[in-house]
This record gives sequence, structure tokens and C-alpha cells, in this order.
Amino acid sequence: MARLVMKFGGTSVADIDRIRNVARHVKREVDAGHDVAVVVSAMAGRTDELVKWSREASRLHDAREYDAVVASGEQITAGLLAIVLQDIGVSARSWQGWQLPIFTSNAHGAARILDINGAELIKRFKERGEVAVIAGFQGMHKETGRITTLGRGGSDTSAVAIAAAIGADRCDIYTDVDGVYTTDPRVVPKAQRLDKIAYEEMLELASLGAKVMQVRSVELGMVHNVRIFVRSSFEKPEAIDPHAAPSGTLICDEVEIVEQQIVTGIAFSKDEAQISIRRVQDKPGVAAAIFGPLAASNINVDMIVQNVSADGKTTDLTFTVPSADYERARDTISKAKDAIGYERLDGATDVAKVSVIGIGMRSHAGVAAKAFGALAERNINIRAITTSEIKFSLLIDAAYTELAVRTLHTLYGLDKS
Amino acid sequence: MARLVMKFGGTSVADIDRIRNVARHVKREVDAGHDVAVVVSAMAGRTDELVKWSREASRLHDAREYDAVVASGEQITAGLLAIVLQDIGVSARSWQGWQLPIFTSNAHGAARILDINGAELIKRFKERGEVAVIAGFQGMHKETGRITTLGRGGSDTSAVAIAAAIGADRCDIYTDVDGVYTTDPRVVPKAQRLDKIAYEEMLELASLGAKVMQVRSVELGMVHNVRIFVRSSFEKPEAIDPHAAPSGTLICDEVEIVEQQIVTGIAFSKDEAQISIRRVQDKPGVAAAIFGPLAASNINVDMIVQNVSADGKTTDLTFTVPSADYERARDTISKAKDAIGYERLDGATDVAKVSVIGIGMRSHAGVAAKAFGALAERNINIRAITTSEIKFSLLIDAAYTELAVRTLHTLYGLDKS
Repeated sequence: MARLVMKFGGTSVADIDRIRNVARHVKREVDAGHDVAVVVSAMAGRTDELVKWSREASRLHDAREYDAVVASGEQITAGLLAIVLQDIGVSARSWQGWQLPIFTSNAHGAARILDINGAELIKRFKERGEVAVIAGFQGMHKETGRITTLGRGGSDTSAVAIAAAIGADRCDIYTDVDGVYTTDPRVVPKAQRLDKIAYEEMLELASLGAKVMQVRSVELGMVHNVRIFVRSSFEKPEAIDPHAAPSGTLICDEVEIVEQQIVTGIAFSKDEAQISIRRVQDKPGVAAAIFGPLAASNINVDMIVQNVSADGKTTDLTFTVPSADYERARDTISKAKDAIGYERLDGATDVAKVSVIGIGMRSHAGVAAKAFGALAERNINIRAITTSEIKFSLLIDAAYTELAVRTLHTLYGLDKS
Repeated sequence: MARLVMKFGGTSVADIDRIRNVARHVKREVDAGHDVAVVVSAMAGRTDELVKWSREASRLHDAREYDAVVASGEQITAGLLAIVLQDIGVSARSWQGWQLPIFTSNAHGAARILDINGAELIKRFKERGEVAVIAGFQGMHKETGRITTLGRGGSDTSAVAIAAAIGADRCDIYTDVDGVYTTDPRVVPKAQRLDKIAYEEMLELASLGAKVMQVRSVELGMVHNVRIFVRSSFEKPEAIDPHAAPSGTLICDEVEIVEQQIVTGIAFSKDEAQISIRRVQDKPGVAAAIFGPLAASNINVDMIVQNVSADGKTTDLTFTVPSADYERARDTISKAKDAIGYERLDGATDVAKVSVIGIGMRSHAGVAAKAFGALAERNINIRAITTSEIKFSLLIDAAYTELAVRTLHTLYGLDKS
């Protein structure tokens, strides 16, 4: 007997038929003897409609009222799923964020979870064998008593936080992919599903463009050591043997991964633009003069490469931004030219970032060097390089993205045999 | 400066444009210096959709979950109206039933309001001049902490209860008619709008088929002496002078009605069927033997007429039921024939009930007698008569309904000059 959190997104609960399908997934786990808390999103399209109304009501709407409006979407799904579960003989009740309660910060629209009353759920598991159906994405601020929402990917975050609060053995994220892959299977048909991936690796993959899970929920899982299991919501509930190991990818602590690979996955992003500042004065405060104005303009800077000055006076500095922000970023730097002090501004929007991720890099030297050799053989020019403990990223011409990803995927032995 | 409750139904808040119109009505009252609490229904069609989903989820759905689902409709409207009010410079915040809180009984789907925390609203009127936008139709059960809904016409009931809790000078019900009429203007073009009507009269009118307000909310108003004002939501907010007496109908205590009419209005209902039980044994317990089984079958019996027995042994008994229940009612009585003991069952579905209402009847004799004469002159046969202190009802052939209503409307001096 285990304690499980099961999370279903908007597409999985888009109508009553799909909610019925979700209920059968839940029943399977209950019948196998598990305690279950289910976290649900709003029915697909519903949140968009509520957001649209709020925007029509006022472009500068009160975030507290906005939260009260949009949180209703998950409330509806939770009630409907509880009804359907009861209908197929599973004891269940719905919980809204304020009922449990899930206390959050006061940052309406992007609140952080502070505290969850897991004891009540555990009591009900024991006394009544009752499934808790919890509205995701929402909570309540303790002092004001008002509804808050967690922002993008909020239901994943709710699920992981609830799993931590009730000490769940696993937090199952049912989604439209059946797990986490070594890279995008559309680019590399030989990409393989990973059985396990460490939190740190998943964080790099997620923030580098693999869209399976929001960074926040993985971070939360890492902090509380919640085992997160990514699996498909399209599998027929009846086709799954509840006593066998399910198929999907487990995001967990690295100690749980016995057979450690050096490289776990290859991520890439074409949504990059590069800006190079030539002959910047190499003096204290110059980085602040560059990145201060960019931050003030809400431009998210990703890679930053600055080399050691050759002449001790000037250096070149390169950074990347999302391509949509390219023009604004150039303008911002141009306007700050006097404050920064540089000779010339270069840039390119036809660039891509390819990243190689693996916890094994920590203890293996020469991992990146192998990549440089292999790419050179293919005549792929590397524009810039950044590295961290468990990954390295390369900026290349966008046209070579797929070739580079495939080359590296083979190089590090990730191809499916 | 007065304290007002303003209630808007689903049609008045059907989309953002209409919500904006509602906001202008509210602003008008705020600008005139009044403290305002607004009670809103769900956007038109929304509750139906939520009810449909709940039914699809299960025909025997848990009423607690059903309430959690359908209460979301009013939650959305309240948030949106608060946003729009803020947008036009009116300080406002939304309140859900559980936030205020509005405590109700545990009868999910048809809960009764038990207690409302009006003090918090009054404090905010005084300290912040803040408009309270309250989700109608809902509350919370104190012990379980679960959302309840009040059932049909629930938002009217919410409005009146809130008016009582904050000691409002008036509870304005904005609706698609501009007041209460002496009878249905579609049947009698000379029908007039009443300036005032006593609670008791309104109760009779409402329960007899005038669909302006639900009986429950009028009863609640009577108990707490809340002055209820029925007015049009279609009037342009800007066309109304907030300092002049508004047009509409005030439902109030009879002592407030200076110029008392003997007859206030004529109600009618064609949705009636008549069942007559011939030669029932005239003995104790026979009424119970008849109406017990009907109640058990959930059939709502309206008029009951039983005459004093002529022979001391048997009598005839007539009652009416909604026409939809006619066959079921006949079956029920037939099945109980042995227990009741009667000779024959007669019935008719082509009958109508016409009722004459007026508090003045209490002190005026011969009011009904005048009606019998006038109807006889028109050759309208009266099948049955029932009377109460402030009304009498006549059962007639349905074909004569309009003629009877017009005749009585003229007879009692209700025609517009």
C-alpha cells in the first residue's frame, strides 16, 4: 500500500467523458489499495475564457479579483471529478484551496505555497478511505482570507506541494507525453525515454526548453525530495497493471539512480538571439552597467560569455536573449552606450543554443571536449560556450541545430539500439 | 445618505458590457452618497451549463459537490463586477458566501440562511467607502465548512438576507420588469404598476403565478421588515435621477401603505388540474388517507375544497394539482381507494385558477360576492371556491381565464384610466 498524488491537466479533464477516464485511473489505484489525492486543472479552455473576461473588464484589473475569477475553473473540475468518482463507487470529496487550506503568500497571480494542512487528508485516508480531489493552481492568503493563484504551471506545483505535505510515496503527473526523453523525438527519432532522471538534470532540461514540467514544481520536488513520475494520460486505465511498474519517467534524487549515465539528455532552443559588445572597457561596474538596464526593461538574459581581457583594457562580451526581445535589448544597450563605454555592437538572430546535460559530468573530465571535436568534424562552428557543473551549452548557427543535436545524441551513446 | 442593497439577475450580468452597465447603476448610487452592497447572480446560461455537467457526471450526484460546482457561477460575476467597478473609480471588493461568511443550514441545494456577518460590511462602508460585491445564491455550512447553495431564486433571498443583516434602508431588485402590476399586462392592457404592495399581498401574488419574485425572499423580507423595491434593469443608469423617487414597486409593511386599496391585484394560473372524489366517507382520517399518499408521491396539492356533508355519511372533495401531475395524482388516489373509501373519481385538466388579492378584504365584506355576480353575468361557471383572509380563488374553465381576469380587473377599479 502506497500513498499517491495523481495530477491531471486541462486536456485530460476537458469534458465529462475525459473526467470519467480520469476517474478510472484513480479507481485503479484505489482498488490496488493505495491512498490517493488527485490534483486537477481547469477544463481545457476554461481558464483562457476567465482570463479573457477579466481583461475585458479592465486592463489593469485587481489581481485579487482576477484570482477569485480564474480559480473557479479548478473548483468546477474538482467537484465534477468527485461526483464521477462517487458514481463509480469510489469514496471521494472535493477540496478547494481555501478549504484544505493551502496557505500561500500574498502575491496574487503568482503566489507561493507556504503551508498545507496534510493531516486532515491523512486522517480521512485512514478513517474513511476517502480520495481527496483537490483544485490545483490555487490557495488562500492566511491574513486576508482571499483566494490566490499560483500562476503558470500552478497545478503541477500544487501536486508536488501536496505530495510533500502528505508524505506521498510518489507524485504522478499525467500528461500528453509518456515521459522525459533524451532529446526531442521529433528531431532525433532514436531518442529514448529515460526511466529516471535527477532533479538537477530535469531542472536544466526544463529550463532549456523541454516542456514537460514547469521549473518551479521540479525545484519544489527537489527541496522536499518528492518523487515525481511523468506518465501518459492517454493510456487506457484498464490496460495498466497496478501491480507492475508503470511506464514513464521518475524525477528523483540522484542517489536513487543506480546506473548513472554521464550524459542524460540534449536540450536545444532556437528561440535565441545573440548580442556581442565589442571592446568593452574592462573595469569594475561595467557588467552592472550592461545588465542593469536590461533587467529594468524586463529582458531575460540567458548565456553570458566574457573572456579575460588580452590587453588588460578592453574585452568582448556576448550574451543571448529570447529572439522576441532582440530589438529591445539592442536599443537598451545603445542607449546606455555612454555609461558602458564600448566600440561596437554586433548581433544575430539566426542562432540556436544546444545544451548537453548530465550529473555524471561532475566526475568525468573531457565530456565537453568530445563534443567540440565531433561538431568540428561536421563543420559546425561554435560561436560561444558556457558551462556549469552538470551541463554545457553551445551557441551555434540555427541552421545546424538538428544536425548538432543528432551528432551529440549519438556521440554520448543516447541512441536507442 | 442611505444604505442600499442592489441585486442584479443573470440577464443583467450576461456579458462584460452588461456588467459595465450594472457598474454604472452602482456608481450612480455611490455618487449620491449611499453605502452599497451589490448581490449578483451567475451570468445567464452559466448555471444551466454547470447543472448540465453535474447531471452528466452522475444522475445521483452528491449535493455537496453539486453546490461546489454551481456556486462558481456567482463567484465569477462577483469578481468581474468588482474589477469593472474599480475600473470606473469605485472602490469595491468581491465576497463569496464563505468569505463573508454567510452561514446556512446543511440542506445542500436548498439551504436556508442562518446568519450573516453584516458588521464587517458596515465597518468597510464607514472606513473605506467600499462597495461590497457579494456572490448570491450561496453560503457555507458552519460545521462542515462546505459551500451550500440556496436553490431557485436564491440570489433574491441572498439580497434580502444581506439587507436585513446590514440594516439596509432598501433592497433594490433589478429585474426585466419595471415593477409589480395589478395583473399580467399581456392579458389586461389596462393593468397598472403598483407603487406599493404589502408583503402578504405579494406573497399571494407570487405564489399564484406572478413571477417577479420568489416567495421565499418575500417571506424573508416580511419577517425582517426589509423594504424590497422591484425596478427595471433596462433603464439607462444615466437617465435616472438618484435624488428623485425611482420608478418601480415597493414591497413593504402594510402600515407604510397609506392609501389602501381593497383589491390590489388579480393573479391567475392555467397550469391547473382538478380532481374530485365523489361520495367520500365523511369520517376522521379520510383527509389524511387522501393527502398522505399524494405528499409521499411529491405531488403539490393547491386548492382543497370539501363541503359539509349533507347526509352525514358521505361528501365530495375537490382539489387541484399542477397539470403535469394530473395522471400521477389520479393513479395515487385510485391505488388508495380501499383505504380512502369513495365511489367515483372525476377530473379535468382544462381548468384555471383566478385569484383576487387585497389586504383590504380583511375589513370589507362582500368583496367576493361582487365577483360571483360579475362572472355570472358573463356566463362564467365557477367550479370551486377557496378563500383566505386576504384573497379568494376561483376554479373556472380554462377557456374563460382571460375574460374572467379582465372582468374582475375592471370590477375592482384596477383599470388604468
